Amino acid sequence: MLAEIIAIGSEMLTPHRQDTNSLYLTAGLNALGVSVAFKTIVGDNRQHLTSAIGIALSRADIVVLSGGLGPTEDDLTRECVAEALGLGLHRDADVMHALQQRFAARRMAMPPNNIRQTEVLDGAIVLQNRNGSAPGQWLDTVYGGPSGKVHRKLVILLPGPPKELKPLFDEEAAPRLRQVLPAYFMASRMLRMALIPESQVDARCAPIYQPYTDVETTILAGSGEIQLHFRCTRPTQEEAEQRVDELAELIEREMGDDIFSSHGESLEEIVLLMLGMRGMKLSVAESCTGGLLASRLTAIPNASRVFDGGVVPYANDQKVMLCHVPEDLLEEHGAVSAPVARAMAEGIRAISGSSIGVSITGLAGPAGGEGPDADKPIGLVFIGLSDGEDTQVKQVQIPGDRDRVRLWATQHALELLRRTLE
Amino acid sequence: MLAEIIAIGSEMLTPHRQDTNSLYLTAGLNALGVSVAFKTIVGDNRQHLTSAIGIALSRADIVVLSGGLGPTEDDLTRECVAEALGLGLHRDADVMHALQQRFAARRMAMPPNNIRQTEVLDGAIVLQNRNGSAPGQWLDTVYGGPSGKVHRKLVILLPGPPKELKPLFDEEAAPRLRQVLPAYFMASRMLRMALIPESQVDARCAPIYQPYTDVETTILAGSGEIQLHFRCTRPTQEEAEQRVDELAELIEREMGDDIFSSHGESLEEIVLLMLGMRGMKLSVAESCTGGLLASRLTAIPNASRVFDGGVVPYANDQKVMLCHVPEDLLEEHGAVSAPVARAMAEGIRAISGSSIGVSITGLAGPAGGEGPDADKPIGLVFIGLSDGEDTQVKQVQIPGDRDRVRLWATQHALELLRRTLE
Repeated sequence: MLAEIIAIGSEMLTPHRQDTNSLYLTAGLNALGVSVAFKTIVGDNRQHLTSAIGIALSRADIVVLSGGLGPTEDDLTRECVAEALGLGLHRDADVMHALQQRFAARRMAMPPNNIRQTEVLDGAIVLQNRNGSAPGQWLDTVYGGPSGKVHRKLVILLPGPPKELKPLFDEEAAPRLRQVLPAYFMASRMLRMALIPESQVDARCAPIYQPYTDVETTILAGSGEIQLHFRCTRPTQEEAEQRVDELAELIEREMGDDIFSSHGESLEEIVLLMLGMRGMKLSVAESCTGGLLASRLTAIPNASRVFDGGVVPYANDQKVMLCHVPEDLLEEHGAVSAPVARAMAEGIRAISGSSIGVSITGLAGPAGGEGPDADKPIGLVFIGLSDGEDTQVKQVQIPGDRDRVRLWATQHALELLRRTLE
Repeated sequence: MLAEIIAIGSEMLTPHRQDTNSLYLTAGLNALGVSVAFKTIVGDNRQHLTSAIGIALSRADIVVLSGGLGPTEDDLTRECVAEALGLGLHRDADVMHALQQRFAARRMAMPPNNIRQTEVLDGAIVLQNRNGSAPGQWLDTVYGGPSGKVHRKLVILLPGPPKELKPLFDEEAAPRLRQVLPAYFMASRMLRMALIPESQVDARCAPIYQPYTDVETTILAGSGEIQLHFRCTRPTQEEAEQRVDELAELIEREMGDDIFSSHGESLEEIVLLMLGMRGMKLSVAESCTGGLLASRLTAIPNASRVFDGGVVPYANDQKVMLCHVPEDLLEEHGAVSAPVARAMAEGIRAISGSSIGVSITGLAGPAGGEGPDADKPIGLVFIGLSDGEDTQVKQVQIPGDRDRVRLWATQHALELLRRTLE
């Protein structure tokens, strides 16, 4: 079964906005055994949209449309689907009632425009939208191509806002698809690694995953991380799970502790989990990353259980004031140096009273360093880690622009922490 | 003139990857007076791609294809364009020479597969790619639809990697388009506002921009910010600039200092600029935002000229240790309170010796507060700002989830800082 996703809205044909719903819809369709063969993005234009729907009906079994279900003249999806399929539209009394209640609950009169939202394709099932005024629609119908042959088509109309589309797809569209489609059992797993080249992962893993011809393996690289995705379809869920687990275990044996997560957790989640299990508390001192590491850690709910906090001694004199780096170290070695990274890690640990102090100091660019740091290359970063007994310092040279150096520096810090805790 | 962009690659039909090149291409096409009417995303499938190209040729004047120009069997763009247009392919000696040199420079033998990359559409101009092995192609041709009528079509083949596509479009494709297309002069402006409801901006601005029927106005809302985009086309560049400047000035008069940027700068850039102009230095103390404000500021190159640094006193006891908040304030009022926000701002200013100290303390959720903060609502945030003479505290209630509360809290802090500096 092939699907096409049509995202409707002129704003997605500007340089400012793009369709993101299709990623979510694709994951949901894949889990039901449906592949997405085409995505089309079209504006709020009657002729363009009607013809795009006709094309989708001629090449896909399932057509999922997102957007264009609002109350304005620009919201054309209902009419264009009707025209492409040669179906009528009727005003649905239940939808009208629900809409009126929705406005009444907000003590507002329903504007006349909203009557457009009560229009339902003949033969369609209304998909109740708890999060907005636009209901979705489900249509199990037939479509005759130019050849005269008639094929069954499933057409699903969903509202554009992600907060409305996602629950409507999961709760209303997906269960109906599952009933209609052949039974399908898919299992998937993801293994995550940090700071290791994609080519190295592939060279070591390809001999292992290639014989698993029934497991689809995808390697994704980005943001200092490699993800290995496995997906398998079998006659039962148990068999599918067993195949991906078996392959994942072989890969885990090969890659060992390069793998930081085998069930999808992010690197910062893993580090927080490990600290929590050991009853340890963390504080950080960040110079060139300027709060990015703390921000990544505190983006995780309940980070406060293990993350004490930290300092961002961005200017050189702040390294003295905020984490008690001896001035002579700065003068002698420069801020971007192993001794200063060491002093920062030890300093923040002592000030915070945490179990572990982690520090980052480096040159993110584009401007170079000053004084004793003047001749050091951009991308040079030192990571310090002090646990009270011992302080280690790691030196790395990160290629790329400011954003990349900053992000990778936090990856290096998290990865050093993870390996130390392991 | 209407364009269609076709993004080619099966990975963009998975839940993990999406086309982003089309945003860049759309901006470039718009600047030449070309609207994008359709975007299609299609996999590495000969039949699907050939038919998608045929459809694009039948409905657009300009077809821009990205991806599928690599050396593998999966790279089908050249062949499929040839098939859709009924054109031949030939091996280009110059491309072959350039490819061989490219490999020689890397002391590698050219793999036989790469010969595929020397195949050029009959009649096409090769677009040299300095950043990769896949050259682009430019084809000015004709296409006959089913009606038998023949139309001129511009077909542009570009490699998928953004680092190759962008320079190739800008340096090779855009100048050729400009020669072929009617002279087009477009001016654009953007005004940015923070923390103001979109509906309010529109209610106040619509009466002003609506009479400017020749200026296209777009309102975009997101991440605690409203952007007003103006775009105008006129027979000369000067006239176009004059129209958008005239409208922008009227809107600036209406919205006053709600507008933080009239030439595209971000809120953090504006705040850093204002501090720099006043010769002032900034330090921050962040609790619930956990380093996000510092991270946003330090993402801007040369932030170090005005940003001293700060502390992230995430745990309650760290508010005492890292920015000297008196313990009794925490016990009496809780960490999420005006007195603590005040003490944090004053504390970090005193410790850092900065001109201005800014603090953020609040409940980001999903868990609620503890002790004296137990009954406070999630989303409650206090922002403190101390300039040595005076300390102000602003209380806000931010709706939404953890990510939203954190982001909006930093917007409130930056906006308070901007208005104080103004």
